[in-house]
Amino acid sequence: MEDFTFVNKTEVRFGADRLDAELAPVMERFGKRILLTYGGGSIKKSGLYDRIMTALKDFEVFELDGIAPNPKIASVRDGQRLTKENDIDAILAVGGGSVIDASKLIASARFYDEDPWDLVINPDIRQTIDQLPFVDILTLSATGTEMNNGSVISNPDTHQKLATFGPNTPAVSFLDPTLTYSVSKWQTAAGSIDIMSHLFEQYFDNATNNDVQDGLREGVMRAVIKWAPVALADPKNYDARANLMWASTMGLNGLVGLGNQNDWTVHPIEHELSAYYDITHGVGLGILTPRWMSYILSETTAAKFAQYGRNVWHIVGDDDMAVAKQAIQQTYDWIKSLDVPMTLPGVDITSDEHFLAMADSAVEVGALDTDAYVKLQAEDVVKLFEASMTTDNFE
Amino acid sequence: MEDFTFVNKTEVRFGADRLDAELAPVMERFGKRILLTYGGGSIKKSGLYDRIMTALKDFEVFELDGIAPNPKIASVRDGQRLTKENDIDAILAVGGGSVIDASKLIASARFYDEDPWDLVINPDIRQTIDQLPFVDILTLSATGTEMNNGSVISNPDTHQKLATFGPNTPAVSFLDPTLTYSVSKWQTAAGSIDIMSHLFEQYFDNATNNDVQDGLREGVMRAVIKWAPVALADPKNYDARANLMWASTMGLNGLVGLGNQNDWTVHPIEHELSAYYDITHGVGLGILTPRWMSYILSETTAAKFAQYGRNVWHIVGDDDMAVAKQAIQQTYDWIKSLDVPMTLPGVDITSDEHFLAMADSAVEVGALDTDAYVKLQAEDVVKLFEASMTTDNFE
Repeated sequence: MEDFTFVNKTEVRFGADRLDAELAPVMERFGKRILLTYGGGSIKKSGLYDRIMTALKDFEVFELDGIAPNPKIASVRDGQRLTKENDIDAILAVGGGSVIDASKLIASARFYDEDPWDLVINPDIRQTIDQLPFVDILTLSATGTEMNNGSVISNPDTHQKLATFGPNTPAVSFLDPTLTYSVSKWQTAAGSIDIMSHLFEQYFDNATNNDVQDGLREGVMRAVIKWAPVALADPKNYDARANLMWASTMGLNGLVGLGNQNDWTVHPIEHELSAYYDITHGVGLGILTPRWMSYILSETTAAKFAQYGRNVWHIVGDDDMAVAKQAIQQTYDWIKSLDVPMTLPGVDITSDEHFLAMADSAVEVGALDTDAYVKLQAEDVVKLFEASMTTDNFE
Repeated sequence: MEDFTFVNKTEVRFGADRLDAELAPVMERFGKRILLTYGGGSIKKSGLYDRIMTALKDFEVFELDGIAPNPKIASVRDGQRLTKENDIDAILAVGGGSVIDASKLIASARFYDEDPWDLVINPDIRQTIDQLPFVDILTLSATGTEMNNGSVISNPDTHQKLATFGPNTPAVSFLDPTLTYSVSKWQTAAGSIDIMSHLFEQYFDNATNNDVQDGLREGVMRAVIKWAPVALADPKNYDARANLMWASTMGLNGLVGLGNQNDWTVHPIEHELSAYYDITHGVGLGILTPRWMSYILSETTAAKFAQYGRNVWHIVGDDDMAVAKQAIQQTYDWIKSLDVPMTLPGVDITSDEHFLAMADSAVEVGALDTDAYVKLQAEDVVKLFEASMTTDNFE
C-alpha cells in the first residue's frame, strides 16, 4: 500500500427529479451568468432542456451545443470564446463524459488567452490559472467525469486524444438515474464496459496488500456485472440505472485508485483506436480488455487474476492459474453478453495499417514500457491489436 | 436505493512520517494560534509530542491534555474556555476517537457562549454557529471520526452518551499507520470490532438493490477480517496497520452509508453499556453484535445474512438460512479470536439491575422501535443483554 493524498470536494445530489427544485439555488452560489453546454438535440427531445431553462428562468443563460462524442478541441475553442465574450460566472454541463470533459477545459480556458490545446499538451499551465466553477447534470453512466478533475480531448488535426487534468472537480453533480432511461443499448453497454475498465485499470496494480482498495473495486465490479444486463433488458429499471450511475462515479472519483503504484494500460491503447477511427470508447475497451488480460496472465500475475475470479466471479478452486483463466473467459463472456462487437473488424477496423503507429503512440503517451502493471513495448501492443482481429482465443 | 446528498471535503494525507514536513504548511492555512489537544501522556512517551512541537516551532501552541476515553463534556468545557481566552485559530487534535470527537465539539463551542452540553442535546444549534477549522493526527484506528462530522460525548452526571454532528469534517487528517504500532492488543481488537460494527450497521439495512454500496462494505469488511489478527500478532506490520487505518476511515466517512433507509442498532445499545459501566466501546460491540445478529435472523433477513456469508466469508451453499447461521457463527469466532471478552460478565457486568433502564434509553435515543433495520422494543434489547450473559448460543 503506497502513500497517498486525497481530497474530493464535489457535492453529489443523487436521485430522481431533484434538479427542478435544486438547480437554481445551486447555480445561485456562483452567479447569474451561466454557460449551458450540451451535445446534440437529445436534451431538447427529452424535455430536459425545457426543465433546465424553467429552473434557470431568473438567470442569464448562454449556450454552447453540439459537443460531440470524443470531444474535439474545436468545441473548447468555441466555449472559451463564449465565456470571455459573455463574462460567464459558471458552466452548467448537461450530458455525458464528452460534454462534461469539454466543459471542464472550457472552465480553465476562460482564464487563458491563447489556444486551449496548449492546456492539453502542457499540463502545468492549468494548475497555475483559475477555473470557472462548473456543475453537471449527468445523462450517461460511464466515464466518472462527474466527480473527478479529468478530461479527454481529441485533436483530429494531430490524431491525438489526450487526458488533461484541471485543479477542480465539479462543484456539484446532479446524478439522476432516470435521465439515463433513454440511453441506447449500445451506449449503455459501452458505458458499462468503460466503468469496468476503470476498475480493472486500478485493480491490476503492483501495490501489494492494498486490500481495502481491492475490496472496494471488487464490490463495484460485482454491481456493474449484475446490473448492466438488467439495464439493457429493461431500460427503465431504476435500480439498474442507479447502480450503474453510482458505479460510474465511484469507479473514477479518485478513491478506489488510492494506494496504487502503476498507471493505466488499456485506456491509452483504446484512445489510439478512437483517435484514428472515432469508434465508441467503451466498445474499443471491451474488445481490448480480454486480450490484454490473456496476454499479461503469467505465473507472476496469476494470483491477482485468481483473486479477481474468486471475489468478483465467485469461482471456486485452489489452482490460481485455472481460476484466473476462467475469470478472463467470464469477463469476455460478460462483455459479449452486452451485445457489442468483440473484434476490430466488428467496428470496421479491417486493416493493420495503423497498428504500429498506434502502438508506438500508446506506449509513449501511456508510458506503457515503464509505468504499466505489466510493462508493454510497442510490439506487445501490436500483438493485442492482432489478437483483436479474431475471436480465436475465446470461442 | 434511496436518494442522497454527499460531500466530504476532508483532505487525507496517508502514509508514514509525513507530518514532520507537512504539518506546518497545513496549519499555516488557518493561522498561528493553535490549540493542541491530546489524551494521556502516550504521545509524550512515543516522541510524537516532540515531533509536533518541533514542526510547529513558529506557531503559538496552547494545550488541552487529559481527554479521556468516552470523552466527557468536562473536557469540552475546558477546551471552550481555552479557545476563547487565547483567540485560537485552529485545533490540532492528536489521538484516537475520543480526542478528535471532543475537539470537534470544542471547535463549535468556541462560538457558543453557554454550556456546550446544550450543543449535544439541541443538535440544531451547531448548524447555526461557526466552527473552528480542525486538523487531526490519528493514533488509533477505530471510530472513523478522522473523516466525518460526528462526535460521541458522555455526560456522567446524566448517564448520557450521545452523538452530535457539526457542520464540518476535519480540514486535514494525517493518517500515519506507524503511529498505531504502539496501540495495545486490547485497543487494536476493540478498534477493529468498532470498524466492523460500523460496516454492519450500514450493511444490514432495508434499502433494496443498493449493490454498489453493499459491495464497498463487503470489501472493507474482508480487509478488516484479514488484517486485524495480523496486527495483533505483529503490531509493527505496516500493511496490517495501514489497512485497518484506511478501513476505519472508509467505514465511517459517510460514503458507504449512502442510499440507506435505516438508522443504527448496536451502537445505541452499546452506548448505554459504556455510559453506565465505562467499558471499552469496541469490546461492548463485540459482545452485542453476534447476539443481535442471531436475534434478528429470520426468514425475512436470511437473504441479506446469506449475502454477507457468501461475499464476505466465502461460504458456499444454496440454503440462505444455513449460510446465514454459519456467517453469524464465523462472525462470533472472528471476534473471539481477537482475544476479547465475549460476555458481559467478562467486562464485569454481572447484574441485570440496569438492563431495563439501558434498554429503554437505547430504544429512545436510537429510535430502535421505529428506525432500525429490524425494529426492537425495550424487551428485545433486554433479551440481547440477557443473551450476552453467557456464551450458550455460540459455543
